[in-house]
Amino acid sequence: MSIGNDVRDCKSPDIARRAHLLAGFRFLDHTLRGCGQVIFMNSPVTGLLNLAAMFWGAYAGGATPAVAIGSLVGALVSTATAYPLHAERGALRSGLMGFNGMLLGAGIPTFLANTPVMWVVLILAAAMVTVVTLAADAALRRVKVPGLTFPYVFATWTVLLAAYKFPTLGIASLPPPALPSQVDALGTVPGLQEFVHASLASVSQVYFVDNPVSGAIFLVALVVHSRWCAGLAAFGAMAAVACALAVGADPVAVRHGLWGYSAVLTAPAVGCIFMRPTPRTFAYCAAATLSAVFVQAALATLTQAVGIPPLTFPFVLTTWLFLLARRDSRDASASASSAGKPSQ
Amino acid sequence: MSIGNDVRDCKSPDIARRAHLLAGFRFLDHTLRGCGQVIFMNSPVTGLLNLAAMFWGAYAGGATPAVAIGSLVGALVSTATAYPLHAERGALRSGLMGFNGMLLGAGIPTFLANTPVMWVVLILAAAMVTVVTLAADAALRRVKVPGLTFPYVFATWTVLLAAYKFPTLGIASLPPPALPSQVDALGTVPGLQEFVHASLASVSQVYFVDNPVSGAIFLVALVVHSRWCAGLAAFGAMAAVACALAVGADPVAVRHGLWGYSAVLTAPAVGCIFMRPTPRTFAYCAAATLSAVFVQAALATLTQAVGIPPLTFPFVLTTWLFLLARRDSRDASASASSAGKPSQ
Amino acid sequence: MSIGNDVRDCKSPDIARRAHLLAGFRFLDHTLRGCGQVIFMNSPVTGLLNLAAMFWGAYAGGATPAVAIGSLVGALVSTATAYPLHAERGALRSGLMGFNGMLLGAGIPTFLANTPVMWVVLILAAAMVTVVTLAADAALRRVKVPGLTFPYVFATWTVLLAAYKFPTLGIASLPPPALPSQVDALGTVPGLQEFVHASLASVSQVYFVDNPVSGAIFLVALVVHSRWCAGLAAFGAMAAVACALAVGADPVAVRHGLWGYSAVLTAPAVGCIFMRPTPRTFAYCAAATLSAVFVQAALATLTQAVGIPPLTFPFVLTTWLFLLARRDSRDASASASSAGKPSQ
Repeated sequence: MSIGNDVRDCKSPDIARRAHLLAGFRFLDHTLRGCGQVIFMNSPVTGLLNLAAMFWGAYAGGATPAVAIGSLVGALVSTATAYPLHAERGALRSGLMGFNGMLLGAGIPTFLANTPVMWVVLILAAAMVTVVTLAADAALRRVKVPGLTFPYVFATWTVLLAAYKFPTLGIASLPPPALPSQVDALGTVPGLQEFVHASLASVSQVYFVDNPVSGAIFLVALVVHSRWCAGLAAFGAMAAVACALAVGADPVAVRHGLWGYSAVLTAPAVGCIFMRPTPRTFAYCAAATLSAVFVQAALATLTQAVGIPPLTFPFVLTTWLFLLARRDSRDASASASSAGKPSQ
Repeated sequence: MSIGNDVRDCKSPDIARRAHLLAGFRFLDHTLRGCGQVIFMNSPVTGLLNLAAMFWGAYAGGATPAVAIGSLVGALVSTATAYPLHAERGALRSGLMGFNGMLLGAGIPTFLANTPVMWVVLILAAAMVTVVTLAADAALRRVKVPGLTFPYVFATWTVLLAAYKFPTLGIASLPPPALPSQVDALGTVPGLQEFVHASLASVSQVYFVDNPVSGAIFLVALVVHSRWCAGLAAFGAMAAVACALAVGADPVAVRHGLWGYSAVLTAPAVGCIFMRPTPRTFAYCAAATLSAVFVQAALATLTQAVGIPPLTFPFVLTTWLFLLARRDSRDASASASSAGKPSQ
Repeated sequence: MSIGNDVRDCKSPDIARRAHLLAGFRFLDHTLRGCGQVIFMNSPVTGLLNLAAMFWGAYAGGATPAVAIGSLVGALVSTATAYPLHAERGALRSGLMGFNGMLLGAGIPTFLANTPVMWVVLILAAAMVTVVTLAADAALRRVKVPGLTFPYVFATWTVLLAAYKFPTLGIASLPPPALPSQVDALGTVPGLQEFVHASLASVSQVYFVDNPVSGAIFLVALVVHSRWCAGLAAFGAMAAVACALAVGADPVAVRHGLWGYSAVLTAPAVGCIFMRPTPRTFAYCAAATLSAVFVQAALATLTQAVGIPPLTFPFVLTTWLFLLARRDSRDASASASSAGKPSQ
């Protein structure tokens, strides 16, 4: 099951060399697909474009290079860990063992100081992410709901919360722990340009990048593989930005994409990835997107009290609820129709 | 599946009008049963009496009219949302799609300022409650435990926590966020009249009403349908008040019914709704009622830190534990007896 | 099913007396096995040695006598409660209904003042622990994961959090509630003697005893029944102490065993109790042990905010994750091999 398996059977050194090379390419392919699966795309091209957008974000100043490097390291380590843990072949080949590692690798250098200890912990945590991925799959399989980015959220929260106890892990930019208190209304309504900026920044914030150009590249990386998904991600960003402004969220945070990134993932997840896209599904997806904004606010209140960011848990929680509710209704209608009774 | 389904098949306008009227009556019936299901009663009469008690509480000054109006709106919206989501017919007809909406509709105006934005959010949240209800059913079906009022707790907590981030949702009376600190002993032992007052207020607090007369009407609404349930609700209230006073809980909060409302639901849930009422069950129910008081205190400590009330989650958690434990024991004894082995 | 069952059938008073005696001995045996099951040993001898170590810890000053007495009372009450609740015979006989009660009985007098009310609550909570044990078994059976010490953690947290609201339950030594703030580096690297002290104290802290001699007796109690388990418990303690010091944890807390006790349980759980001990398993167990240290730190940050200790929840959470991940991989590989496909 290890990457070397195919090699050991080979007879001549020449074939062995080629097999090694092939195994290396395969591993790279699985890792790049992992970089694409952050936004549900089983495509090495999308993955490569995502990495390009991250390095662009780092170059253009929206994020440190460590975030881009960390995301590549995280994806490599968590994909590699999946081999000795006997992850399901299909999942591994589709990149499903890499996307949580990529996000963790982007998240940890965003919040912790760039030290050797941080990199050691990042690598260990990226390996642990694969354990959590397999555990989440085992636990959630029974309710037929995917683990989404929960493993990344769990492992990153663990490292960030642990940093408060371990001085060798310097905290760079975590939200200062504070009891909840209602924020003041600020009331500056942004123009269209601001609105587009905030929406594109929401897309890039999925990857901890605060840069509208990167956001545009991420959307292009989506169009390559699925126009539905790209369209719904853009819709999610715009709907969330509009909703957050309407209820009076802090406009500066909105501009930096912090109120839209969960919706960028929720809208395609509910609208076209885990449900068939129909007009009916779109209405359901719009409700999920709106809910994600409120869940984001609620979780931000909770996590701020303990000095950590909500990460993408608002997306995970909202999508779990809407997918669970869907199945239930399907089961119910299935059993009703099989009983052959008229609908009323 | 929509309420209009029966209408479309009709030929003459006269029959169509009658069918429309019939569908309207059915919808009202389902909503009123929802108002009864707050306290486990599948009865439109109990539902109507519950609403009457709420409006009485509003009139008599124990609560604002918005709480009574909100509870009706919440029940209507969440019941209506269940149709397009294809909720199970049986559950819909028994009012199981309405009681969480009714509680949410009473809860939100209790804690947030009475503004148009609050009403828009209340309606959206009441629709979301139905999604959470279906999701909870799907997740809990496997362990054969009911969702109870969890969907209401989840959606209301989400809105209240989100209000800290959204200035347009003014906070009217949430508990001020505070780190835990042990309360001082107050030591005034109340007389019998105070004890009865506190117990009846505990019943009315299930519906966010702080009024012993409303509490008495709620009990009458129960007697209509089930004397067992009414008796156990009264027992739960009295046992919780006695236990809370014995361990030194704040007597003012006890008087306002804040230490008894979870037990008012826990006692009938364990004692006669989800288990057959026997002397043995009664002992189990008494243990659950006592546990609910401690779980209430523990959750109050946790939720106060983030500035929200525990709502009925103490009831939900305690009842889940005691129902899960019961099934387990039943399974075990069933397999033991089927194996035909002697008991020792 | 009650302990008196065998008695009622008896005819002569002499046989009845003997049967009573026998039932008493059996009950004592189940309780002592419960004291052994704290560290996974189904052995009354280990249980007796564990109790001896606790009384030694109390005598030598590392803990109050109430901790030792409480642990015996807790084990007796929770084991006795399992009879009327129809716990599975096999689980009862192996002591699986007693170890959570033993830990709760040691934990409550550690944190709360030694008053009559505390003892009443301890007895009620020890009974409640059995309800939670049965509930956890029912909920977790579907994912084939054991409840571990979760019931003890849940019930003890409930009582400690409730104490903040109930002045009759005096708080003796809970961590003062505080928002997270990064601790300063202290940088004193301890010598070998300190290292051994910290490792043995980590073993004794499983039982709330801070005493290296007690730690050594606990290890001897393990060797009696399983050398693998004793070796892995010692490995877990040493690995956790080394890891905590390496990342800069407070050396005073490390010396008192507060950074190692979760790993003392995690290492044998993953390494030899719930998985077959192989070199491969050992690598997995080492990863779990390291993870437990980070999970311990993360949970300590969270629980400190609400003024309670993390207890053994870091062990529970880490072990659940690693056991869930293992099964998943096994299922996957099983289905892959049954499909008869080559591994690549």
